[in-house]
Amino acid sequence: MKRETSRSYTLGELAERLDARLVGDADLRVDGLSTLADAGPTDLAFLANRAYLKYLAATRAGAVLVHPAHGESCPCPRLELDNPYLGYAKLSRLFDPLVNQALRGVHATAVVAPGARLGERVEIGAHCVIEDGADIADDCVIGAGCFIGADTTVGRGSRLHANVTLYHGVIVGDRAILHSGCVIGGDGFGFAHDGKQWEKIAQLGGVVLGEDVEVGSCSSIDRGALGDTLIGNGVKIDSQVQIAHNVQIGDHSALAGCVGIAGSTKVGRHCLLGGGVGLSGHLTLADGVQVTGMSLVTNSILEPGVYSSGTGSMSNSQWRKNAVRFKQLDEIAKRLTRLERDIRDS
Amino acid sequence: MKRETSRSYTLGELAERLDARLVGDADLRVDGLSTLADAGPTDLAFLANRAYLKYLAATRAGAVLVHPAHGESCPCPRLELDNPYLGYAKLSRLFDPLVNQALRGVHATAVVAPGARLGERVEIGAHCVIEDGADIADDCVIGAGCFIGADTTVGRGSRLHANVTLYHGVIVGDRAILHSGCVIGGDGFGFAHDGKQWEKIAQLGGVVLGEDVEVGSCSSIDRGALGDTLIGNGVKIDSQVQIAHNVQIGDHSALAGCVGIAGSTKVGRHCLLGGGVGLSGHLTLADGVQVTGMSLVTNSILEPGVYSSGTGSMSNSQWRKNAVRFKQLDEIAKRLTRLERDIRDS
Amino acid sequence: MKRETSRSYTLGELAERLDARLVGDADLRVDGLSTLADAGPTDLAFLANRAYLKYLAATRAGAVLVHPAHGESCPCPRLELDNPYLGYAKLSRLFDPLVNQALRGVHATAVVAPGARLGERVEIGAHCVIEDGADIADDCVIGAGCFIGADTTVGRGSRLHANVTLYHGVIVGDRAILHSGCVIGGDGFGFAHDGKQWEKIAQLGGVVLGEDVEVGSCSSIDRGALGDTLIGNGVKIDSQVQIAHNVQIGDHSALAGCVGIAGSTKVGRHCLLGGGVGLSGHLTLADGVQVTGMSLVTNSILEPGVYSSGTGSMSNSQWRKNAVRFKQLDEIAKRLTRLERDIRDS
Repeated sequence: MKRETSRSYTLGELAERLDARLVGDADLRVDGLSTLADAGPTDLAFLANRAYLKYLAATRAGAVLVHPAHGESCPCPRLELDNPYLGYAKLSRLFDPLVNQALRGVHATAVVAPGARLGERVEIGAHCVIEDGADIADDCVIGAGCFIGADTTVGRGSRLHANVTLYHGVIVGDRAILHSGCVIGGDGFGFAHDGKQWEKIAQLGGVVLGEDVEVGSCSSIDRGALGDTLIGNGVKIDSQVQIAHNVQIGDHSALAGCVGIAGSTKVGRHCLLGGGVGLSGHLTLADGVQVTGMSLVTNSILEPGVYSSGTGSMSNSQWRKNAVRFKQLDEIAKRLTRLERDIRDS
Repeated sequence: MKRETSRSYTLGELAERLDARLVGDADLRVDGLSTLADAGPTDLAFLANRAYLKYLAATRAGAVLVHPAHGESCPCPRLELDNPYLGYAKLSRLFDPLVNQALRGVHATAVVAPGARLGERVEIGAHCVIEDGADIADDCVIGAGCFIGADTTVGRGSRLHANVTLYHGVIVGDRAILHSGCVIGGDGFGFAHDGKQWEKIAQLGGVVLGEDVEVGSCSSIDRGALGDTLIGNGVKIDSQVQIAHNVQIGDHSALAGCVGIAGSTKVGRHCLLGGGVGLSGHLTLADGVQVTGMSLVTNSILEPGVYSSGTGSMSNSQWRKNAVRFKQLDEIAKRLTRLERDIRDS
Repeated sequence: MKRETSRSYTLGELAERLDARLVGDADLRVDGLSTLADAGPTDLAFLANRAYLKYLAATRAGAVLVHPAHGESCPCPRLELDNPYLGYAKLSRLFDPLVNQALRGVHATAVVAPGARLGERVEIGAHCVIEDGADIADDCVIGAGCFIGADTTVGRGSRLHANVTLYHGVIVGDRAILHSGCVIGGDGFGFAHDGKQWEKIAQLGGVVLGEDVEVGSCSSIDRGALGDTLIGNGVKIDSQVQIAHNVQIGDHSALAGCVGIAGSTKVGRHCLLGGGVGLSGHLTLADGVQVTGMSLVTNSILEPGVYSSGTGSMSNSQWRKNAVRFKQLDEIAKRLTRLERDIRDS
């Protein structure tokens, strides 16, 4: 379903914004973004992957964002630039109805403690609760039903969608985007065993998010036991992710959905963790490490590169036979060694 | 603990509802459902699995739902039908206190935008926020603290439990059941890399849920990048599930807890994904595919059947030895081939 | 970042609380807890792990909590006791700003049903909704935005952080700590198939949490189908955990982040489930079972011990070769057996 957007743009405006080469009518207006296959005459489409080149000739798009190499194949006006996918990303926010929404101030039902500080041009949604000492910087939008605990600070230009929870003593950097249901600053999982039962360790640290951090729906980032849990600048965290106490994530790393990171592990800069990846506690991952989906990492990884675990999937009947053999694998290896020796010695 | 329910029913009424054969007193009243082992004299019990046949003779139930083949063994009145488990399912809602609750209208603390449309017999709980252009159809119950974004529609007879979040531009079909903490329509995880950092791609699509969809607690379904994320009719989604942008789930598929599906993957109709299953992005699963718990699927599956990955669990000491050998597996296979050749050639 | 705490304590007070041997000035005041490496002159540090012994001599801490064996090496006053980690745990709550916060009564915006019962010294946060028949015992703190359903009871001295959801008919024992975004009592995943589609089974049971239970952020515990889901005394549940209907968890077990447990499985007492562990349904785990991170358990485990599954992680290039061989493993084993036989017979 196509959403209505509040604005349209001329190709000339968009070319200027992207510093792209415009071929065609600079006054042509587009009011949406679309794929080559689905675009209509007022949409801007883009070609960012050769697999979609086959759709270019027949696209009904009003205009197309392309690499110069494919410019000649366009049946319509075009914006040429070296990285059309990046160009699409840069333009996409122009068409986001939320981004273009007028600010609505502090809703009458919001409960803002007298000791909280609100910056300029801040929107606080209905039924928000902002505790004492909290500090919401300029140009923030805090969605309905959010809770912002005591002494927590939210940096300039951040957006919290509805029903986000920030505990006390959390620091969120500028331009954060926090999605609904995410919880930042809940207690880390820390207990001492007294021989019979668990004694809770109060989690006295906080959470610090750098600038330009995004956190997906229903994700959780726990507060540190003593020091803080640290999320670097530009880190992107998908939905259903769990980050335990005192974890550190280096700048510009990206964590896909359902990732879980145990306590005190340090992930480097520019790392990529695939969906469902698990990292044990107290590990170090170097800068530039990539881990493929649902892999478990139980040892530090000190060299950049791509890492994996698991078996790959197969039919259940095939799998059953092989999984049984996995339990015999050490024995199989020993039998093989014995056989090699017997033959060598015979 | 047994809950109080607001109503009791005669066996005659229940037999008619299920089109079951009644053997015994049609006027006998039951006010609860229970297992054979736990039932008391005002409960209706059921036998749906031969493993529980041993409890039938001694059950204290007031009446029993059974297959005709076991009718003679019942010590009490009975309702006979071919699928007692389905019969139990159909009757179960009669005993749900929430289903029988009187509607309570729009709570005084709910914030309903002037441009939102509410149907007939709609309940809006305390502290709900319903944004402009939202459309809540007849006979819906929206639990306390829910957020329903601009231009989102909720179909007839749907129930949102407390603290559900629907972003803007989401379409929920008729008779949906959405559990607390679930988030529908959060941004998909889309970024373009500019060589140094991630540029956010605004997620301009929506989410469309068909009819009779259920979504469990704390699950998230992300909105599409351009087109919509599509959940078919009758799809059942358990708790803690993550569905990424532009995923499509075919009608009547069921996803158990902690499943994660990466972007743009298409799951067929009547598929079953076990708990914790992960599907990589851009895959296709045929109709009727079943994937067992915690399997990772990284390639499309074009034939119906049961699929698995992983090793099975074992004692840690046994596992350590075998896991080490897994890392040598390719070498083991090559050594075996060499040995076979040597022997053949000798 | 160091948080301000409301109180300071003399070493004499702390020694008495822990029944520790004080060596040094009993009137020395400390106002925070810290690691040996980070502590300042008004902090109490602790040495609980030999790996940190190297930091003891140079610590700037005001005082240290140590085992008597390391007392002599302390450069400052000390509290000696046999289990310094447990001592640290016991003292940690003294420095938690939330624990020391004055109670604030029932907020004007909270919606408390006339038929709900509130004990003495109860705090109900802004925008909470407490339904009819709910019972909140003495000394509870219910954070902002919580929903407590009809007939649900919360035991003495419990703390619900902001935005917790308890469905109707849930029983929470004394001294519970429930973190934001967790949902207790959502429907279990129960459906009967009628040959074409799924028929919902109303979930008529509840959830019972014992005493001293903690549940992490965004975790979900589903209500039973007929009987209750049961969580024992002293059970600790981390963030992003999913517990399905009719599961039973024995006393003092601990479940790390992202664990998922399928329906009707019984986990014994004093069990430890590592992060991301999955348990299939209808299993039994004995007391004292430990399962390492991300293992899948599909059969009951009747002996205490440590259990694992999976392959361990490696470089992707190495993994690809071995994962292919895993699919040939049964064949490899058979070839090896054939070869052994051939050689024996030759």
